[in-house]
Amino acid sequence: MSPPTALRILIVAPETLTPDPDDAIAGWQAERSRSLRIGLLEAGCNIVAVLPADVFLPERLAQIQPDMIIVDAESEARDTLEHVVMATRDARRPIVLFTDDEDTTHVRDAIAAGVNAYVVAGLAPERVKPVLEVAMARFQHEEGLRRELADARTQLQERKLVDRAKGILMTRQGCSEAEAYARLRKMSMDKGLRLADLAQRLIDANELLA
Amino acid sequence: MSPPTALRILIVAPETLTPDPDDAIAGWQAERSRSLRIGLLEAGCNIVAVLPADVFLPERLAQIQPDMIIVDAESEARDTLEHVVMATRDARRPIVLFTDDEDTTHVRDAIAAGVNAYVVAGLAPERVKPVLEVAMARFQHEEGLRRELADARTQLQERKLVDRAKGILMTRQGCSEAEAYARLRKMSMDKGLRLADLAQRLIDANELLA
Repeated sequence: MSPPTALRILIVAPETLTPDPDDAIAGWQAERSRSLRIGLLEAGCNIVAVLPADVFLPERLAQIQPDMIIVDAESEARDTLEHVVMATRDARRPIVLFTDDEDTTHVRDAIAAGVNAYVVAGLAPERVKPVLEVAMARFQHEEGLRRELADARTQLQERKLVDRAKGILMTRQGCSEAEAYARLRKMSMDKGLRLADLAQRLIDANELLA
Repeated sequence: MSPPTALRILIVAPETLTPDPDDAIAGWQAERSRSLRIGLLEAGCNIVAVLPADVFLPERLAQIQPDMIIVDAESEARDTLEHVVMATRDARRPIVLFTDDEDTTHVRDAIAAGVNAYVVAGLAPERVKPVLEVAMARFQHEEGLRRELADARTQLQERKLVDRAKGILMTRQGCSEAEAYARLRKMSMDKGLRLADLAQRLIDANELLA
């Protein structure tokens, strides 16, 4: 497996790196966020942006096109995660969640929908790399499954269209199934159209002429 | 999300709980394995068996039918994981890998094929539960995708069979597509057969009579 060298990472995190000096918890969280970023840099990653989970996230994601999204949500992972999953619905990306939030009750849907790894925050920097590699492998595996599913559905849909178009030709021109199919094939080649697209046109035309 | 109370867990691990007292590394690994098991018990899990990754694993898995498999592989995760993934190929189970092995190079395929979570060994016992919950959510999500894919492929396959059977009836009985379909439907109801099964029989019979 190629190392995640130059993986372009987008970190989604609240603004915690310059906390109120009197706030011990915020200071501790900032320390952990810093440690995570050191781990990413040591793993050879390229942190291209650090952004909060707000309404601008989808647009910025589209501009930046990162290879991976890391959600650094010390707590309140729920809201952050929902924003990120929504923002990547159209252009899917591997998502890794680093969190201290033990309550997965409310993030379950978001997790099921898109997060490829859940990591307890505060991981030693040198352990960041295998986590990212495994998350990437899982993501690619699931994308493969999704592609197969989309292909199978498209084939089924196209077959239905071609069957309807054949039926129309058989009825209107009184020909056999084999003849109808041969005519469709010839027309699709003559017109330079995919068989399913031609079938859709025939179905539309038949409705107009019905 | 319901807690993983009474999740029936099978642990796959080498025999490390009674190490050679002079072997410091083995002693340390035994300590971590013990800590993981404490974490599982505290999370309300039921550890139904602890087995090595050997040739008997598939058979024992089939007997035990655990809800989840936890691979406790301090090192040499590769071989252990391959055994476990092979053993669950037919009856899929969520697999969580607790390991110290930083080298994911050679486990990539196994990971892609079946592991739902990769966890750095030595996790605090109280953090075990959210890891298991998330792994379970991911597993269920992926099983859903797999089911959809299997359904789409079955539908496509059945449609092809029914189409071939219609074509046979149209040719042999000189009827229209609509008539052929109506006859198939009636026959399938009369014989109490699924349409696709009837279609397969017609195709087989046609070959014999050709």
